[in-house]
Amino acid sequence: MALIVQKFGGTSVANPEKIKAVADRVMAVQRQGNRMVVVLSAMAGETNRFVDLAGQMQKLPDPREMDVLLASGEQVTVALCAMAIKEVGSDAVSLLGDQVKIRTDTSHTRARIENIDTELINKYLDEGKIVVVAGFQGVTGRNDITTLGRGGSDTTAVALAAALKADKCEIFTDVEGVYTTDPNIHPSARKIDRISYDEMLELASLGAKVLDIRSVGFAKRYNVPVHVRSSFTDTEGTWVVEEEEEMESMLVSGVTYNKNEARITIAKVPDTPGIASKIFSPISDAEIIVDMIIQNTRAGALTDMTFTVPRTEYDRAMQVVEKIATEVGAERVDGSREIAKVSVVGVGMRNHSGIATTIFQVLAREGINISMISTSEIKVSCVIDEKYTELAVRALHDAFALDKENVTEISHD
Amino acid sequence: MALIVQKFGGTSVANPEKIKAVADRVMAVQRQGNRMVVVLSAMAGETNRFVDLAGQMQKLPDPREMDVLLASGEQVTVALCAMAIKEVGSDAVSLLGDQVKIRTDTSHTRARIENIDTELINKYLDEGKIVVVAGFQGVTGRNDITTLGRGGSDTTAVALAAALKADKCEIFTDVEGVYTTDPNIHPSARKIDRISYDEMLELASLGAKVLDIRSVGFAKRYNVPVHVRSSFTDTEGTWVVEEEEEMESMLVSGVTYNKNEARITIAKVPDTPGIASKIFSPISDAEIIVDMIIQNTRAGALTDMTFTVPRTEYDRAMQVVEKIATEVGAERVDGSREIAKVSVVGVGMRNHSGIATTIFQVLAREGINISMISTSEIKVSCVIDEKYTELAVRALHDAFALDKENVTEISHD
Repeated sequence: MALIVQKFGGTSVANPEKIKAVADRVMAVQRQGNRMVVVLSAMAGETNRFVDLAGQMQKLPDPREMDVLLASGEQVTVALCAMAIKEVGSDAVSLLGDQVKIRTDTSHTRARIENIDTELINKYLDEGKIVVVAGFQGVTGRNDITTLGRGGSDTTAVALAAALKADKCEIFTDVEGVYTTDPNIHPSARKIDRISYDEMLELASLGAKVLDIRSVGFAKRYNVPVHVRSSFTDTEGTWVVEEEEEMESMLVSGVTYNKNEARITIAKVPDTPGIASKIFSPISDAEIIVDMIIQNTRAGALTDMTFTVPRTEYDRAMQVVEKIATEVGAERVDGSREIAKVSVVGVGMRNHSGIATTIFQVLAREGINISMISTSEIKVSCVIDEKYTELAVRALHDAFALDKENVTEISHD
Repeated sequence: MALIVQKFGGTSVANPEKIKAVADRVMAVQRQGNRMVVVLSAMAGETNRFVDLAGQMQKLPDPREMDVLLASGEQVTVALCAMAIKEVGSDAVSLLGDQVKIRTDTSHTRARIENIDTELINKYLDEGKIVVVAGFQGVTGRNDITTLGRGGSDTTAVALAAALKADKCEIFTDVEGVYTTDPNIHPSARKIDRISYDEMLELASLGAKVLDIRSVGFAKRYNVPVHVRSSFTDTEGTWVVEEEEEMESMLVSGVTYNKNEARITIAKVPDTPGIASKIFSPISDAEIIVDMIIQNTRAGALTDMTFTVPRTEYDRAMQVVEKIATEVGAERVDGSREIAKVSVVGVGMRNHSGIATTIFQVLAREGINISMISTSEIKVSCVIDEKYTELAVRALHDAFALDKENVTEISHD
């Protein structure tokens, strides 16, 4: 008898008809002899409505009260879903974050799960009930309600699956799974059948649309098999699992891009020991998150320092950087909002050389200039001019033949 | 430093502007040096919306899940109100029924409060916070959410005031207070300044519009002064308090009516010992609540048995009664939906004779036939033909000069 955790997002529970469809779906799996835990989000649109209401009350809504407000959304869907299940003859019970005891830290609106009590859920499962748990919410040690931040219901589901030692965690969403790239950019994007936790983490910007990235970290740590699939069909989606041997034979799993960053360059900085710290300490003091950092060596005692920041923080970052540049005696500061980061991800890279070279060749052939490069064990990222994003993604997707399954050779031209 | 509990109903928190007005009102009282506890209902309309959603899920919605659903309504208003208070500089914290620990029995959708833990509220009050408590909801010993039924927020407020030993409990509503009769029926209906708990209990049908009747029982038991007043003005409303000497000098406090009952008569029943039990046991087994019961003695060994039931239960009651009548050998059964119960209430009745006589005279003068009479220490009720209701109420109100304050003489003609 397997234990399965299934999570349905806001669009899957947006109205009574859809909630009934979720109930039917869950019961069908239970009838096959499985113990079922269901995690639900709030109805689509509710969170925005609450944020709007809160904004009318307080310019910066109090985080503790914001969590009380937001958590009411899942309370509605779990109660309705439990009713729908009971109506058609199965037994069910709803549980809120504080009833399960999904214990979190005290960081309201972006809390982290510290511990999950499984006793009550197991008791209800033993009674043959389908346990419907409110996603996205938890409770602090002093019984204050917390929420886990955007995508938090995915984290609830994976964390529950880990705590309950579930056989699998299924995340139902409005797409068929994880794709080799954004199907809106490249029509031959292909659904990936199986992908490793590490690749999924690197494919953040693809994954974020279907699976909250924090939940992947959780899944990896506790080795929970996660199945990302469509709530509208019965077809298999994408399994996010421990790395498997076959995966390594695939050179590349996917091509992803990110248009949410901006580039800042401090040119001709005196290259003295401790200069990086002098530049980046004030930026982190300003709570601006820096992603890529590149230091080019120039001839002589001068260097260029280039880095990326979230595009929304560009203006604020420029103000901080202009001040630093003067202090450290740099020649000038420039930057650009119109950049994109294009990344190629695959565990196969570990054992195959030449992938970075292929990437550079492909981009060069298309006349795309690379302004920054960063690599990890399983990823190569290039910062390019934003206007070439789609072209670069398509060219790279084609070069690695991602539209075909199990291709192990790079297609050179 | 006084401790004041204030309760605002659904129409007082129906939108962001109104919630801000509640926040302003509460803070003004706090600034006068008072410790403040605020009890809120859900936004007007939310409960109906939830009931409708639940009805789409399950023909008879599961009571436990119904309570989870309903309780989310107050969760929204208390969070928003706490934000509104914090925005304008005072400090506030919201608490749900399970956070306070408003312990109830397990009768979902109509739970009764068994115990209230005051520790957390007092701690927050000591910190200078305004404590905003979700009305209408509680929690069982096993941490399931319960609700208290219609008007439950009034009960929450009075019960909190009792548990906290508050100096007063103010119920804000959309009318100015409790009136001597329904102002829609008699334009000279007058707002009552002070009324005893017992009178308020007897004035149920007047009181129910402004104050849940269970909360009056609570107030009486724990001697909580309750102030029923308008949320739109600053004028004094009606104080519901322990009986005072001046009240006894008022012969009559109010005239009320009830059109929600129906009459059933079993005619010519053999008058044997135990006959009442034979008739009423099957009715109570069918969970039909009987209000008034009158047994008329006829000449010989036959009697007529007349009683009232809720009008909505009339058909079901008739079915049960027809069966009993055959069994006990009664001659026939008849009944009527078109009745009304008109009641005159006043603690002054205890010490004044002749009030019942006056009532009978007034009704006779208007040509209104009385079909049933029942009396308590402080109330006389007459069942009449429904179509005379308004006429009877106006005539009785005038006869006892209720439009004038402190009248101690009956106006005979």
